[in-house]
Amino acid sequence: MANSKYEYVKKFEMDDKLPACNWIIVRIDGHKFHQFSDDHDFDKPNDENALNLMNSCAVSMVEHFPDIVFAYGVSDEYSFIWKETSQLYDRRASKILSLSVSYFTSLYVIKWKDFFPHKGLKETPCFDGRIVLYPRAKIVRDYLSWRQVDCHINNQYNTCFWMLVKSGKTKKEAQERLKGTLAKDKNELLFQQFGINYDKLPDIFKKGSCVYKDTVEETLKPDNGGNPVKRQRQRVTVGHFNIIDDRFWDEQPNILREN
Amino acid sequence: MANSKYEYVKKFEMDDKLPACNWIIVRIDGHKFHQFSDDHDFDKPNDENALNLMNSCAVSMVEHFPDIVFAYGVSDEYSFIWKETSQLYDRRASKILSLSVSYFTSLYVIKWKDFFPHKGLKETPCFDGRIVLYPRAKIVRDYLSWRQVDCHINNQYNTCFWMLVKSGKTKKEAQERLKGTLAKDKNELLFQQFGINYDKLPDIFKKGSCVYKDTVEETLKPDNGGNPVKRQRQRVTVGHFNIIDDRFWDEQPNILREN
Amino acid sequence: MANSKYEYVKKFEMDDKLPACNWIIVRIDGHKFHQFSDDHDFDKPNDENALNLMNSCAVSMVEHFPDIVFAYGVSDEYSFIWKETSQLYDRRASKILSLSVSYFTSLYVIKWKDFFPHKGLKETPCFDGRIVLYPRAKIVRDYLSWRQVDCHINNQYNTCFWMLVKSGKTKKEAQERLKGTLAKDKNELLFQQFGINYDKLPDIFKKGSCVYKDTVEETLKPDNGGNPVKRQRQRVTVGHFNIIDDRFWDEQPNILREN
Amino acid sequence: MANSKYEYVKKFEMDDKLPACNWIIVRIDGHKFHQFSDDHDFDKPNDENALNLMNSCAVSMVEHFPDIVFAYGVSDEYSFIWKETSQLYDRRASKILSLSVSYFTSLYVIKWKDFFPHKGLKETPCFDGRIVLYPRAKIVRDYLSWRQVDCHINNQYNTCFWMLVKSGKTKKEAQERLKGTLAKDKNELLFQQFGINYDKLPDIFKKGSCVYKDTVEETLKPDNGGNPVKRQRQRVTVGHFNIIDDRFWDEQPNILREN
Repeated sequence: MANSKYEYVKKFEMDDKLPACNWIIVRIDGHKFHQFSDDHDFDKPNDENALNLMNSCAVSMVEHFPDIVFAYGVSDEYSFIWKETSQLYDRRASKILSLSVSYFTSLYVIKWKDFFPHKGLKETPCFDGRIVLYPRAKIVRDYLSWRQVDCHINNQYNTCFWMLVKSGKTKKEAQERLKGTLAKDKNELLFQQFGINYDKLPDIFKKGSCVYKDTVEETLKPDNGGNPVKRQRQRVTVGHFNIIDDRFWDEQPNILREN
Repeated sequence: MANSKYEYVKKFEMDDKLPACNWIIVRIDGHKFHQFSDDHDFDKPNDENALNLMNSCAVSMVEHFPDIVFAYGVSDEYSFIWKETSQLYDRRASKILSLSVSYFTSLYVIKWKDFFPHKGLKETPCFDGRIVLYPRAKIVRDYLSWRQVDCHINNQYNTCFWMLVKSGKTKKEAQERLKGTLAKDKNELLFQQFGINYDKLPDIFKKGSCVYKDTVEETLKPDNGGNPVKRQRQRVTVGHFNIIDDRFWDEQPNILREN
Repeated sequence: MANSKYEYVKKFEMDDKLPACNWIIVRIDGHKFHQFSDDHDFDKPNDENALNLMNSCAVSMVEHFPDIVFAYGVSDEYSFIWKETSQLYDRRASKILSLSVSYFTSLYVIKWKDFFPHKGLKETPCFDGRIVLYPRAKIVRDYLSWRQVDCHINNQYNTCFWMLVKSGKTKKEAQERLKGTLAKDKNELLFQQFGINYDKLPDIFKKGSCVYKDTVEETLKPDNGGNPVKRQRQRVTVGHFNIIDDRFWDEQPNILREN
Repeated sequence: MANSKYEYVKKFEMDDKLPACNWIIVRIDGHKFHQFSDDHDFDKPNDENALNLMNSCAVSMVEHFPDIVFAYGVSDEYSFIWKETSQLYDRRASKILSLSVSYFTSLYVIKWKDFFPHKGLKETPCFDGRIVLYPRAKIVRDYLSWRQVDCHINNQYNTCFWMLVKSGKTKKEAQERLKGTLAKDKNELLFQQFGINYDKLPDIFKKGSCVYKDTVEETLKPDNGGNPVKRQRQRVTVGHFNIIDDRFWDEQPNILREN
């Protein structure tokens, strides 16, 4: 009953090591979450509990995987940026992808009841994932800008769409009304028809969510000589920043520092 | 705020379509389940509830993904065989891998309480996954034989190991005792020292678990003319078969039929 | 001046080993040979010397690389089939591709003067190449059928086209005349207008060229006892066979025999 | 005789587009050139004609492929650096690799008689090739430093080795004599025993060869008003520079400029 006769099948496993010196982005996306959000009566256009659940999972991801330096989430999607020098799992693509997606999914199901204490899960939530490599930090920034502009465009559209629907229009009529409108037309529509100042909407809707580790200095109680004792502590921060402009990155130069 | 300026980042997404006419095996493996099984007091060497939970997840997988033709599980590992002609997700590796792992993980957390009603989850269960391609059905059979021989070898070793430990030996002593023993030595040890006939142990431990769809014919109530009405129905079967010998495959010729 | 400080750059070399149990096809194609054939006054629609040069290179390829089991050529293109079990160059794609293309190119330049003794090379002939993997012998046969049907279609078109041009039509007029014609229309055109029976044209034009090794038995002079001494000898055969139908393959069962 | 029934075989062609924003290095290496150089009586340790032939081929390569920005050669090896933004052949790896290797090989055979007018080719020269991607210009510089240090180490060793052999030692004795010697030991050996000052040897042996395009300004004859007319002209330069230190690169900032 020796196994050697069958072990040749291992030869078919292909090497999938990712090339060195590339930032690794794992983007996770809710699978059929349009249906999922309907079935669980998510608020439209944004369900704060659902977003907070996603953010809570992302915080746990950043705490769990030491090489994730930044995460950006919008709607049912989250991008996790692994530092370019990461050697975790020997940079094997399938390990990084599968463990990221599996851990995120597990967290989502476990944390569900904390964010929806009165709603049971009616379906099996499921996320797909993909890996994209970026050879330079500045392209990673363009990637993040791409996602944040997308967040803005979608949120503005969805805010208009759902206000129109809530005001009595059919979904089809709402679509028709918005066809061909520019950003400023949409803002005007919101203001004129619904008294909504788009700029005053919560940043979590307009800008998405950023999750990252930073180091804070804490002052502890004085030592015997009366001198204050300080300690560096790493913490995970969640915020809704503009990550297109330079300001955030100038203030956080370590996140995407190239080796 | 147009997004076009950043859209070039999409060009970095690589095509990962799997080659046609290859059987796709997705093997899922519990991540750090040695620790996980300790933390949740799994019975040693085999925890029937834990195995049944794995099998229940596998059944849901086979029901959910139409192109999985067979699944084989042992311990905290499961292999899912997608038919060679599958066009699901356009055969994109990252889609197939991430959705398989995510769905399995989600099921595992959701079904946990059904199999461990009195044990809460103390950790975030997590599975890694990999894809292996096999160009011929006969190599898929060798792959499955490889996993089943592995199941047998590990189970025999673990049964001896845990009987020795339960009888008072330290883990180190148990290891020493088993070093260099052959299969027949282990069977004798079990019989002589613990009165256990290895061959009488449950098949789920010795052979692992097979999950597959088959078609059964049901006889419904007679029609108006009094003739019995028959119906084909597809069902998912779980069994603990010998999948090394030809017999199972001769009886189930459709599972691995080549196009 | 130690080199260790720079050796990390080797880590960027990616593994490109081809999966086991797949037939490896290297298809080589003349680069800009439309121009090349004009510049060297190749006969139209087919230049026999140019085809014989290609075939001579292919014979040397088959003799040189022990794992090429069959080669098929048409016009300025040649496909080399490496046996599925080949371990040459550890199945590394870039080795197999680059050495095949380089050796073929080298042969082409060296042998040029043997086939065109009165024409010097006016340009640097150059071939591109690609690798395609086929998991089953029957798909290799379909691949070869695809190339041979292509040969037939192109040759029939080109024969008509160049006869029309030689008879005084412009290239544009010839194109117009052939637009929308079926195979039988083209045959009729050739016969009616030019007295050419397409079926009587040389097979090298209509069917392309096959190159493969086979084993012949030679009878040597009798031994001392007067018994004839026989010897197996491997030789390389060139022929212009129908490789779409089964007959050729039935007669040469070893070429594509699956392991 | 339609071809559509077989066209499915094209689906097996895999996408091999190289990721954007990576410098593409094609390294070409003489296949079995140890034997080849013996068979053609190359001078040892360096044959100037053979090196000049390699350099002449490299110049033609740089002239032919517009996206090669730099080439570095030593012995029977040449590295061609394609600019990171190259879109040639749609960045398909097999096109870039096969055409580079094929064109180089063709040049080598064609130019042979210019550098060895009295020696016929006794073998079919053949080169293998591989592609390596580097995501940053500074890693390309480290790659080139790696090759140039290698050139230095090999040349110093080979110079000693062949001087010893020419002085009457066997190859085995020469190897023994050099075992464990450091750079300075080798220089001393050359000086003491053979009166050779290693530093005075030709740069082409010690530093290898660089080939690149640069732009020069030419002053043409004055125009009608008597003003000198200037013209930018691109030329291909061959030199034997130190490419480890910054100086060369400071003087040629455009070669590896990142986009």
